[in-house]
Amino acid sequence: MIQERLIKLREAMKQADIDCYIIPTCDFHNSEYVSEFFCVRKYFSGFTGSAGTLVMWADEAALFTDGRYFIQAAAQLSGSRITLMKMGEPGVPKLKEYVEKNFKEGQNIGFDGRVMTASDGMEYEKIARKKGGHVIYDRDLAEAVWTDRPTLPATKVYLLEERYSGESTADKLKRLREKMEQEQADMHILTTLDDIAWLFNLRADDVECCPVLLAYALITQTEVYLFANAESFGETELAYLAENRIDLKPYDSFYGHVADYCKNDANAKILLCEKRINYRLKKEIGEQVTLLDRPNPTTLMKAIKNDTEQENLRKSHLMDAVAVTKFMYWLKKNVGKVPMTEISVDEELEKWRRKNASFIEPSFHTISAYGANGAIVHYSAAPDSCTDIAAKGMLMIDSGGHYYEGTTDITRTFILGEITDQMKQDYTLVARAWIRLMNTRFLYGCTGANLDLAAREVFWEKGLDYKHGTGHGVGYLLNVHEDPNSFRYKVSDMTENWVFEEGMVTTDEPGIYIEGSHGVRIENELLCRKGEENEYGQFMYFENLTYVPIDLDGIDPSAMEQKEIGLLNHYHQDVYEKLEPYFEGEELVWLKEATREIKN
Amino acid sequence: MIQERLIKLREAMKQADIDCYIIPTCDFHNSEYVSEFFCVRKYFSGFTGSAGTLVMWADEAALFTDGRYFIQAAAQLSGSRITLMKMGEPGVPKLKEYVEKNFKEGQNIGFDGRVMTASDGMEYEKIARKKGGHVIYDRDLAEAVWTDRPTLPATKVYLLEERYSGESTADKLKRLREKMEQEQADMHILTTLDDIAWLFNLRADDVECCPVLLAYALITQTEVYLFANAESFGETELAYLAENRIDLKPYDSFYGHVADYCKNDANAKILLCEKRINYRLKKEIGEQVTLLDRPNPTTLMKAIKNDTEQENLRKSHLMDAVAVTKFMYWLKKNVGKVPMTEISVDEELEKWRRKNASFIEPSFHTISAYGANGAIVHYSAAPDSCTDIAAKGMLMIDSGGHYYEGTTDITRTFILGEITDQMKQDYTLVARAWIRLMNTRFLYGCTGANLDLAAREVFWEKGLDYKHGTGHGVGYLLNVHEDPNSFRYKVSDMTENWVFEEGMVTTDEPGIYIEGSHGVRIENELLCRKGEENEYGQFMYFENLTYVPIDLDGIDPSAMEQKEIGLLNHYHQDVYEKLEPYFEGEELVWLKEATREIKN
Repeated sequence: MIQERLIKLREAMKQADIDCYIIPTCDFHNSEYVSEFFCVRKYFSGFTGSAGTLVMWADEAALFTDGRYFIQAAAQLSGSRITLMKMGEPGVPKLKEYVEKNFKEGQNIGFDGRVMTASDGMEYEKIARKKGGHVIYDRDLAEAVWTDRPTLPATKVYLLEERYSGESTADKLKRLREKMEQEQADMHILTTLDDIAWLFNLRADDVECCPVLLAYALITQTEVYLFANAESFGETELAYLAENRIDLKPYDSFYGHVADYCKNDANAKILLCEKRINYRLKKEIGEQVTLLDRPNPTTLMKAIKNDTEQENLRKSHLMDAVAVTKFMYWLKKNVGKVPMTEISVDEELEKWRRKNASFIEPSFHTISAYGANGAIVHYSAAPDSCTDIAAKGMLMIDSGGHYYEGTTDITRTFILGEITDQMKQDYTLVARAWIRLMNTRFLYGCTGANLDLAAREVFWEKGLDYKHGTGHGVGYLLNVHEDPNSFRYKVSDMTENWVFEEGMVTTDEPGIYIEGSHGVRIENELLCRKGEENEYGQFMYFENLTYVPIDLDGIDPSAMEQKEIGLLNHYHQDVYEKLEPYFEGEELVWLKEATREIKN
Repeated sequence: MIQERLIKLREAMKQADIDCYIIPTCDFHNSEYVSEFFCVRKYFSGFTGSAGTLVMWADEAALFTDGRYFIQAAAQLSGSRITLMKMGEPGVPKLKEYVEKNFKEGQNIGFDGRVMTASDGMEYEKIARKKGGHVIYDRDLAEAVWTDRPTLPATKVYLLEERYSGESTADKLKRLREKMEQEQADMHILTTLDDIAWLFNLRADDVECCPVLLAYALITQTEVYLFANAESFGETELAYLAENRIDLKPYDSFYGHVADYCKNDANAKILLCEKRINYRLKKEIGEQVTLLDRPNPTTLMKAIKNDTEQENLRKSHLMDAVAVTKFMYWLKKNVGKVPMTEISVDEELEKWRRKNASFIEPSFHTISAYGANGAIVHYSAAPDSCTDIAAKGMLMIDSGGHYYEGTTDITRTFILGEITDQMKQDYTLVARAWIRLMNTRFLYGCTGANLDLAAREVFWEKGLDYKHGTGHGVGYLLNVHEDPNSFRYKVSDMTENWVFEEGMVTTDEPGIYIEGSHGVRIENELLCRKGEENEYGQFMYFENLTYVPIDLDGIDPSAMEQKEIGLLNHYHQDVYEKLEPYFEGEELVWLKEATREIKN
């Protein structure tokens, strides 16, 4: 089947005069998650992992993917005649080196410029030009070949009322335009889906687990164009657009519109974030106009949750905490008595969340990892191969929900019976790191690079580490991974120099991963708040949003500092007080015990 | 007197067609400290502070300085008709805003381009150009007016033998040229004095407390030019230059040489650090050649102390520790019995240091601050106004020495008798921050921005702070403040993105400053070392270099965490073991007591 598809793709390449066709894993908006329509790489290679690039030539094909997927990719590529390129392994070339090396004089590179980031596209352009070739980026070869392709998502768009969003689109546009004026920008181009959803107070379900709509936006001081599928909008939403004088245009007409604008006004100054746009847009803009390459102003605006959002988040997190804690009670009571698998417990948890009327959907695919699976950071249980759960060892569940009152993300690791001393030490270490960061106070001006140590130092002093950031920003009924705030000691392009502002929400999720044995991760969400202001400056602190017990069966108080024991007891006291109204009888007795004071 | 000087300066300005003459506080090399020859601003204003800029017009004059010097400057400017501009105060314009505002159409701005940084000079150029004027930067108006000006320093240059430097100039040049080749640079221009001293293994005494020589250097793949005063070189040094095929040219001929080179080869690529060069050099280079603006490669090379330097540093720090600890014994024994002032105790301390044959000079002006003076971060005791020391309260001494075996920098705060509870709490807090950072372990890749929290978090959790970095790099028989390594949570242009490498030496010096009452600072030097390498990466730690007791009379163990008490006891045990061979009799009994184990 794959072979047939590749034959057809090669015919299309020949017709289009393309010698090397590149298929990354991306939508038109550089989103982290993509819908089925965009799974072109999967269609042509059979490889279903979340990351990978297929490179097609007339006589060979190669798939590049990373260490998470070597085993899975090898199995899925078997028989396809596609070579697996294990990224990062010794002797394996980098993607662009490979393309350059195999690329011959006068050949052309092709790709759909809408699914290629501008910077990657520019690099391929360089490779092609060096050998007198071209980049052909204005067609999607899958269009003709993939006959039963799912349609572009076009789910119902709904207006997020101001009691949830806390700020009207008019006010958001006003703030954005002030920023544009400061930057002396004539136009702002916005292509990132969460920024667009936030700005227009619109939500939909066009990307799984991300309540966004496929759209582009152009904003000037007097006009706003929203490029989206008009049929997805109801009367209320159309009226809201009209009221805000937002001109709704067909999704497809975006590129032509940009090209016309740039041709008509060669002196225009356009504000956009080059790291976020695709190559096609970059080419349509051309080289005449002036680009003001800045982070999208909405990135910071939406990261700072307003008072309404903050108040709502306290509610959604309480709903979520009740669900997760009731699930915890059910799990600890029934494990070993009722059959359970990694997937069935996730279904059980979702049932508890669904009891809330304002629950919309999970905010990402749950990671439900039992025993040794917990050591795989991005583990995903498959229905046909997931593990049965017994009354021993540990179960890690990383999950979350989208509510009208906001998005949640929580990880708890549950002790299901006997565990080893090592597991207990590891569990305790993670809890120590987690509670230390939660209680950090700091002066305004700190970034995530300054504060990561608050969690990680107890790991480092033992010669241990976890190979992921300590935390990421979370959207409000938007992406569960949201820039720019984070806790990471290594700064990246996307996170550098952003300081913690009041209203930012960030996860606190240290973990430990012992291959073949077990994994522990504990995750809360923290809301950044202003504290005391004194002669030294403005102090800041984190308000905890997540009130679910830490499984004390995993804690060894003798391995904790007195301060940490005090903080954990204080946390559990808060958990009890928050949850007590929602528990009764035997459940309440259990809750009291689960949040008991510990001593060394 | 000042008035007369200003009249002459205004005449010189008129003759040179300069309407606004700017005199910053700088030498030709953007050094932190400058010799008397360069104290032009002091000569014309009478203001003796370490920072300030004098702006002269035909009919007015203004001196800009910062908060440290408002009182002193007001007194010293009295009667001069120079307006004091208190930088940072409400309503006071910024220096360049002030110049721009007062600058009239067609006027010219003048300054000696050698004492103006390239970036500042470019800003004045813009101001002048906007109003159709010029910048006149090729003359030093002080030359004609300041008739009894000290000569340019030209102290004896000496070769630092390889048993001290650990690497020959030939090898250093080889490494530098490899770096130039990587960067495809045809020439490297080096104007920073410590980089030049390090590269050529030469030292002198041209800047007070900085064992450097005034020099510039040009390096290509085949040639090396050193521009310096030939008369300062002895036979050994001249032979060393000859052996390394280093062409010694007159100090003054540097700018002409650069201009010629750039005119002759317009395609040249020149590697230099734009932040470090002066405006005159920038203009001589012109705009034809390509500038490769990078940190000077020698910045990183010299920050990473080689094995010989590390071994020597252990020796110099031990010599220094013996001196400071013997001084501590003398001080604690004699205070209240023998008359003492802030300055006399410094002289006493220097006597102890001078007992070592390889002691050269203090590495900076000692800060000896008694009682409330300790709260002034940059306090400098003056002979005519320094404070008498009594057997109560606290004395902070921040001092250091240059030895052939390296440079030291140490602060201790001594308890001289009764202190308040608050003082004891503050002293203990500083000691906690200090010992925590010293014992931090971390993964390779961390910068000072990641690690600053290790010291500062105990301050922040109490709503306290100190308004300076936690530590700075230290040179090897070079500047006591050396880039790029530091501990600071706010990154600056000079410190960003540098990671801690094995061999870097950094101070660890938290402090607390209570205005009108007291100040505490404790400072050691830490050598960065490689620790365990395991599956998580390369762990790093700090080897302590400074072995002088912390005054336990200031410590309240009940305000410390158990871990911190253990670390402090461990430190004192090490101090005793290192120093014991140099102490005997009553002194040794005292040392044992001063390094005793404490308990909570």
